[in-house]
Amino acid sequence: MTFLRPAGKAIFKDRFTTKANELLRHYDEGKKATFGLVGFPLSKPSISHSGASLAPTAIRNSLASFSTYSGEEGRELTDELLDFGDVLMHPTDVEESQQRITVALTEVLATGAASQWFFLGGDHSISYSSIKALAANHTIGVLQFDAHHDLRNTEDGGPTNGTPFRRLIEDDIVTGERISQIGIRDFMNAKEYHDFANQHGIQVYTMEQVRELGIIYIMERELNRFSRLADFIYLSVDMDVLDQAFAPGCPAIGPGGMDTQTLLRGVEVAAKHPLVQAMDIVEIDPTQDIRDMTSKTAAYLILTYIKNKET
Amino acid sequence: MTFLRPAGKAIFKDRFTTKANELLRHYDEGKKATFGLVGFPLSKPSISHSGASLAPTAIRNSLASFSTYSGEEGRELTDELLDFGDVLMHPTDVEESQQRITVALTEVLATGAASQWFFLGGDHSISYSSIKALAANHTIGVLQFDAHHDLRNTEDGGPTNGTPFRRLIEDDIVTGERISQIGIRDFMNAKEYHDFANQHGIQVYTMEQVRELGIIYIMERELNRFSRLADFIYLSVDMDVLDQAFAPGCPAIGPGGMDTQTLLRGVEVAAKHPLVQAMDIVEIDPTQDIRDMTSKTAAYLILTYIKNKET
Amino acid sequence: MTFLRPAGKAIFKDRFTTKANELLRHYDEGKKATFGLVGFPLSKPSISHSGASLAPTAIRNSLASFSTYSGEEGRELTDELLDFGDVLMHPTDVEESQQRITVALTEVLATGAASQWFFLGGDHSISYSSIKALAANHTIGVLQFDAHHDLRNTEDGGPTNGTPFRRLIEDDIVTGERISQIGIRDFMNAKEYHDFANQHGIQVYTMEQVRELGIIYIMERELNRFSRLADFIYLSVDMDVLDQAFAPGCPAIGPGGMDTQTLLRGVEVAAKHPLVQAMDIVEIDPTQDIRDMTSKTAAYLILTYIKNKET
Amino acid sequence: MTFLRPAGKAIFKDRFTTKANELLRHYDEGKKATFGLVGFPLSKPSISHSGASLAPTAIRNSLASFSTYSGEEGRELTDELLDFGDVLMHPTDVEESQQRITVALTEVLATGAASQWFFLGGDHSISYSSIKALAANHTIGVLQFDAHHDLRNTEDGGPTNGTPFRRLIEDDIVTGERISQIGIRDFMNAKEYHDFANQHGIQVYTMEQVRELGIIYIMERELNRFSRLADFIYLSVDMDVLDQAFAPGCPAIGPGGMDTQTLLRGVEVAAKHPLVQAMDIVEIDPTQDIRDMTSKTAAYLILTYIKNKET
Amino acid sequence: MTFLRPAGKAIFKDRFTTKANELLRHYDEGKKATFGLVGFPLSKPSISHSGASLAPTAIRNSLASFSTYSGEEGRELTDELLDFGDVLMHPTDVEESQQRITVALTEVLATGAASQWFFLGGDHSISYSSIKALAANHTIGVLQFDAHHDLRNTEDGGPTNGTPFRRLIEDDIVTGERISQIGIRDFMNAKEYHDFANQHGIQVYTMEQVRELGIIYIMERELNRFSRLADFIYLSVDMDVLDQAFAPGCPAIGPGGMDTQTLLRGVEVAAKHPLVQAMDIVEIDPTQDIRDMTSKTAAYLILTYIKNKET
Amino acid sequence: MTFLRPAGKAIFKDRFTTKANELLRHYDEGKKATFGLVGFPLSKPSISHSGASLAPTAIRNSLASFSTYSGEEGRELTDELLDFGDVLMHPTDVEESQQRITVALTEVLATGAASQWFFLGGDHSISYSSIKALAANHTIGVLQFDAHHDLRNTEDGGPTNGTPFRRLIEDDIVTGERISQIGIRDFMNAKEYHDFANQHGIQVYTMEQVRELGIIYIMERELNRFSRLADFIYLSVDMDVLDQAFAPGCPAIGPGGMDTQTLLRGVEVAAKHPLVQAMDIVEIDPTQDIRDMTSKTAAYLILTYIKNKET
Ligand SMILES: [Ca+2]
Ligand SMILES: [Ca+2]
Ligand SMILES: [Ca+2]
Ligand SMILES: [Ca+2]
Ligand SMILES: [Ca+2]
Ligand SMILES: [Ca+2]
Ligand SMILES: [Ca+2]
Ligand SMILES: [Ca+2]
Ligand SMILES: [Ca+2]
Ligand SMILES: [Ca+2]
Ligand SMILES: [Ca+2]
Ligand SMILES: [Ca+2]
Repeated sequence: MTFLRPAGKAIFKDRFTTKANELLRHYDEGKKATFGLVGFPLSKPSISHSGASLAPTAIRNSLASFSTYSGEEGRELTDELLDFGDVLMHPTDVEESQQRITVALTEVLATGAASQWFFLGGDHSISYSSIKALAANHTIGVLQFDAHHDLRNTEDGGPTNGTPFRRLIEDDIVTGERISQIGIRDFMNAKEYHDFANQHGIQVYTMEQVRELGIIYIMERELNRFSRLADFIYLSVDMDVLDQAFAPGCPAIGPGGMDTQTLLRGVEVAAKHPLVQAMDIVEIDPTQDIRDMTSKTAAYLILTYIKNKET
Repeated sequence: MTFLRPAGKAIFKDRFTTKANELLRHYDEGKKATFGLVGFPLSKPSISHSGASLAPTAIRNSLASFSTYSGEEGRELTDELLDFGDVLMHPTDVEESQQRITVALTEVLATGAASQWFFLGGDHSISYSSIKALAANHTIGVLQFDAHHDLRNTEDGGPTNGTPFRRLIEDDIVTGERISQIGIRDFMNAKEYHDFANQHGIQVYTMEQVRELGIIYIMERELNRFSRLADFIYLSVDMDVLDQAFAPGCPAIGPGGMDTQTLLRGVEVAAKHPLVQAMDIVEIDPTQDIRDMTSKTAAYLILTYIKNKET
Repeated sequence: MTFLRPAGKAIFKDRFTTKANELLRHYDEGKKATFGLVGFPLSKPSISHSGASLAPTAIRNSLASFSTYSGEEGRELTDELLDFGDVLMHPTDVEESQQRITVALTEVLATGAASQWFFLGGDHSISYSSIKALAANHTIGVLQFDAHHDLRNTEDGGPTNGTPFRRLIEDDIVTGERISQIGIRDFMNAKEYHDFANQHGIQVYTMEQVRELGIIYIMERELNRFSRLADFIYLSVDMDVLDQAFAPGCPAIGPGGMDTQTLLRGVEVAAKHPLVQAMDIVEIDPTQDIRDMTSKTAAYLILTYIKNKET
Repeated sequence: MTFLRPAGKAIFKDRFTTKANELLRHYDEGKKATFGLVGFPLSKPSISHSGASLAPTAIRNSLASFSTYSGEEGRELTDELLDFGDVLMHPTDVEESQQRITVALTEVLATGAASQWFFLGGDHSISYSSIKALAANHTIGVLQFDAHHDLRNTEDGGPTNGTPFRRLIEDDIVTGERISQIGIRDFMNAKEYHDFANQHGIQVYTMEQVRELGIIYIMERELNRFSRLADFIYLSVDMDVLDQAFAPGCPAIGPGGMDTQTLLRGVEVAAKHPLVQAMDIVEIDPTQDIRDMTSKTAAYLILTYIKNKET
Repeated sequence: MTFLRPAGKAIFKDRFTTKANELLRHYDEGKKATFGLVGFPLSKPSISHSGASLAPTAIRNSLASFSTYSGEEGRELTDELLDFGDVLMHPTDVEESQQRITVALTEVLATGAASQWFFLGGDHSISYSSIKALAANHTIGVLQFDAHHDLRNTEDGGPTNGTPFRRLIEDDIVTGERISQIGIRDFMNAKEYHDFANQHGIQVYTMEQVRELGIIYIMERELNRFSRLADFIYLSVDMDVLDQAFAPGCPAIGPGGMDTQTLLRGVEVAAKHPLVQAMDIVEIDPTQDIRDMTSKTAAYLILTYIKNKET
Repeated sequence: MTFLRPAGKAIFKDRFTTKANELLRHYDEGKKATFGLVGFPLSKPSISHSGASLAPTAIRNSLASFSTYSGEEGRELTDELLDFGDVLMHPTDVEESQQRITVALTEVLATGAASQWFFLGGDHSISYSSIKALAANHTIGVLQFDAHHDLRNTEDGGPTNGTPFRRLIEDDIVTGERISQIGIRDFMNAKEYHDFANQHGIQVYTMEQVRELGIIYIMERELNRFSRLADFIYLSVDMDVLDQAFAPGCPAIGPGGMDTQTLLRGVEVAAKHPLVQAMDIVEIDPTQDIRDMTSKTAAYLILTYIKNKET
């Protein structure tokens, strides 16, 4: 009919503008694309109150705030972003939910439908589950942007969002030397876990080091190091690596963190590296965010990754 | 795949519970159902700042907060709600947008796909456009729930949300005696327009009269009166007929209005009447609402209408 | 110039609608009117955090949400509302501020410019200061709508917003028998002060009594009683007499209070009485209010008073 | 020292006013009192996003908004409220958390320290755990105020906040005839569960019946019925039984519910009955509440219960 | 009278402090000053939901947060700021509103009352209307700070806030080479419009270029270029050129933008140039802003302009 | 009991993590520690609306968002933080409240219980009172981080939060040459007070100078200067020295201020100096803050101070 559009879609359309969410294409069997995306709407493992389970939807919606065109490069992003949807979580069985992520992602990877992956958390516990699935076929190197080590013991609280990288090591999924933590902040971690990082050969870059060495130097150094240690580099972006002024929607906000530009530059450098093949974005709680700023930054990170990936 | 659901749909599903939004079925040619629904996302005609254009989406989403089961009657609502989507508005040509509503609704009605209609505003100006479309084939009686007459002159501001019923009369679409205004409030109207109502035979019930006569008496009296004057009775529900405590999301909130129970009872009585065949719900601004309360009440009104309609 | 209006005044004007704030007329020497209005932007005496000093502006602005026409009576309010402005408060000397209210109001009253008064708080401490000014020439009867007695001792905290009626009695400005407290609530007062009320002959109506006796009965009884005891009846409306659902902007919100309709009816009955000549409205904190609901109700109370006052 | 007070306690103190939170006394071995209170900060079983785990603190804090004096009865509440603190929840093992509530409450009850109990949720799943502990020594009758049956099957989501009363029946802890559900609302339940209620002899009062029969009639009828069936009557107050205007802080808000006065009256009548010995208050999410209104009402319910309990 | 001040003006006054809003002086015929200011409260042309029509009032009010004294220069700003008020907009005829801006500004300019101009939007569509008025007597060069090109085609949506610079070119009001766009951001524009910019000789500086070249270099280069091309340089400041952390109140917020200091520096350099004679500030939506931060920055920009303008 | 924890303390505990609030130890007679802390919950002297009286609680609570471990230094903070609690303020006598701070702090200092002090405001007026107490036994040098001079005359408003440093000079408590003001901003002060600063030898660093000279240079220069002039250096941190993006919770927010990193660096350099022995943090209004960001930064400043203080 002349003016009718499907519910919620009667939105102004400029004929020359493609919105970034239009790159999303629901996955159906047989479809292939460079980029794939899966949502893990899980935040019940979080130690503190979190609505990060709502972030996959918020981040997808935020893609609609952006176009597909990079003026910096004078280039249109045209690759489809195959959307495998979200993994159904169990309301009361947290570990079951975490296992479902691994199961689902294993099935997704088995399709061979994409070669570059975006995983939308959820809290940081999802990184254990997703990396476990990837590690079945790859030697993974992890570049973790985070204010926190996430190396807590699991005796005290089980597989919380404070434990994913500890569990990866303890379950022999990733060795410590193949983990790099960038943006670790004062007064947001315990000595025990910094010691654990050192003992297991995890490469730690504090915020002070980020400021002194520069993000580009750090990224290149770690990418170079991982080139020899891994065949698949995974970016794990905990948005609380950003200062609270730039990521007001994280459960664990605080001062002293990165500015957005530094994180964008870090992702830019990483994405250009051929071994970097996946990025997760975690710890956004849309119910605590201000005007979806943090989800918007997440969407921008995805586009920045795509733009810098040679395809 | 085992646990994957389409984006945003990985939500807990109780096998015995049908959510009210599951009644919505996208209209395709040839489909038929008792109930049809169309969204008119238009609020640029509003005199005051309004985001009512966002309400069709908010109301549809609010249907997901409810189930299809009336415990009061021990009856499941099973009729499909054919969703014709939203009319695409013009960004800068307000009158064009208003005409598109009439054009679109005329096309919708021509399908003969449904016999009972829900129209989701938008601001109150949409009622002019929708009734105009219906009046092509019907003699319309209008039961308007509203704190305001909406009989303003059009010289001062054109076809604003303060003018729809004036325009219906001036354009000979509905005569004054076939309009009934319920819930008109002190200090929210001008004498000129109350006089206009009286001169044109509009039946006005102030809030004081609602409290004294009771909503059931008023409804029955007006339905009875319209039975002789019209072949199609249209409910136009401006949510600001409710007191601000019950409808915090209307642009023109204020004290002294109806409580929700009274409005629900009014819609209940109306829906039972065979000539009542359409209801619009207008003047909800989701950007100013508190926890979507007003949209939730709108969704509840729709379900109440369906439940009480003999089908 | 053709389309230019003074800053902030370029607002849609319907030629037939007078907004209630247009009744406000800045007082200049020699001007006379039935109604006068003064603002007392003082909340530093408050026991709890309060921004009630911002309420005079919020209430005046809320008048712009209403028209001057009462459809219930088919009558336009046309009396000017002489606005004497606001009393300048001292930033750090609370008692000086309270005295300035008395001084300023004494000067205002000396003009003889109006015979009916609206006083906009501010917190409830302003009632002591305003009644003190009036009591110089009148025997005052006070009808206090409040959840609280406001009869606290002054040793513990000086002239706070919990003390005005105690201080009026102790300073021999008003005797207890000439104070009536309506809407007093469970768990919002101390026994000591209820006892004080009883010992001094203050007539107390709890919320339970309001529900059982009805507001009209109570009002008529007290107005009748005061007719013999006073020559000037003063309404003191602490908005927290309302339930939190109806007055979300009071510092001391809580459940179990009046609905708006009851308070409106009470003011209606009172305003009709010839001895009722002033009303204050206190304890609205616009910084904690929801969409200015409480200020809007305050504006509506003013209009309701005007409408019911024979002039 | 002269003016120093412990951190956070330097608050104005009126010598004659006792705040209701001052009734709280930390439990130590050997202490006894009529009233005991335990917090269950658990909301991870919730089907929808919920921060109800934060409610025990919010409700306790809200007690500080009230005094201990009932002006309606002219009586000071002086009984101590023994505070057993909060049960420590497990971050990732939901069923372990639910069992801890039963274990902890069993230990608490074994102290024999109090005879009347307040349990602060958390979400409604805590009622299963608390009633299970009580049922070890009592035949329990449950008066459930709720918009929802909470009789969902557990296959679909495990022991969520939608299942407590189903689980009580299936685990032979309480029979259906000893459960009474008051305030059940249209479009908030599934037919299957209404049928389940009927099949198991649960007494259901819909909101329509509450309006028609009156809360006092319903309470007296059910209390009378339970007098013959149980030796311990438990009030389970899901705050979403209230209309959204009165309880804006519930996860599942909606229109068509009770007003606060009706619920207060219901608790009043119940508390007077000698067999009523416990009340839980659940489903308050302080992160979604407006100015702690819902927690304030919860605190008021506790005080109303205490006031009406013959001790 | 002793302590009375006009309504809303009873505010603490330090005898040595002049607030910046005190520079505002209502224009009356014959008055002259260096600086003039006009408000264009228009946001109905906006593609997305916007309350930018409320910004002229918010920005003027924000001037009251600042003083007139520059400590950096040890200089008091004393020039009056002639306030011509706001242009009255038409409620339903968007193009009429846009024409009124041109008409009104033409009349304002004809007074010759000021030589430096501040125009307060409103959305960015107002720049077309204001520049059109100025271009009647000047060859205009436009320095546009913006994340977006605003060169959209007008077929799709008419004269929206995405079109002003396209329309200026198409209507031969300003040639492309006399437009400079600074701060253009990735993923916020379409390739078509970047191409249009290039084809028409618009000088575009992306954010990456701002970071690499520095704002001072860019400003000086463009000012120098315009010195030869234009006789009147117009700054058009779309606040969304700022990163969302610094301008949370723009409709189109996003990451990757300028910090405030860079924008201030840019305006500083520009204001010093003798040909720069006007600045508009657009795309602030006070209803979405956080604590008026964005309006406060707008006010600060105005003061920075005044301070740097040789007068 | 097995799982019960005191009210509000049933929070996840990682065995290896110490939260910074666990360093707080309630002061009892005889206790000693390096660091002492006192709260001054006073904001009634504020010129503008302020809830800064709520900040001592908000800052203490924010310590719970941080751990005691500095990863930058690989060092655990283990020194206790003796908490002397908060000074009880007078509800209506502002000057009495200010004197109580001096009296209380004098008593606190007399205990000799700590050698390094944190004072939590309140508004900036508390600095006068606290420095007065310290000056009884020390020659004080003041490093004031502030956007404002706070040198207002006291005739106009008494001892407001705009006057503390003027009063210190006028009362011969601190001479001007022993005051250094860092971060003074354009358009936030009056010329008179800048002149006053100059006349009294106050060393003023504007934001422009902070940007040009660098915070480290400024700190070292002033610390060096004070080494010869004072025996006790006092840091007074008005959080509004920060840009509004970094300190959204200050009453007087605005653009053009410091970023958090600069302030942290400043405190770092200062804390290392042996004469620096106290820091106050003022002008945080938790009721206006966004997600307690400003209080979190305050807590982080305290930890940064502790970490850098040789003990
Ligand atoms: Ca993490
Ligand atoms: Ca983290
Ligand atoms: Ca209407
Ligand atoms: Ca209306
Ligand atoms: Ca009071
Ligand atoms: Ca009160
Ligand atoms: Ca329930
Ligand atoms: Ca429920
Ligand atoms: Ca623009
Ligand atoms: Ca823009
Ligand atoms: Ca200061
Ligand atoms: Ca300051």
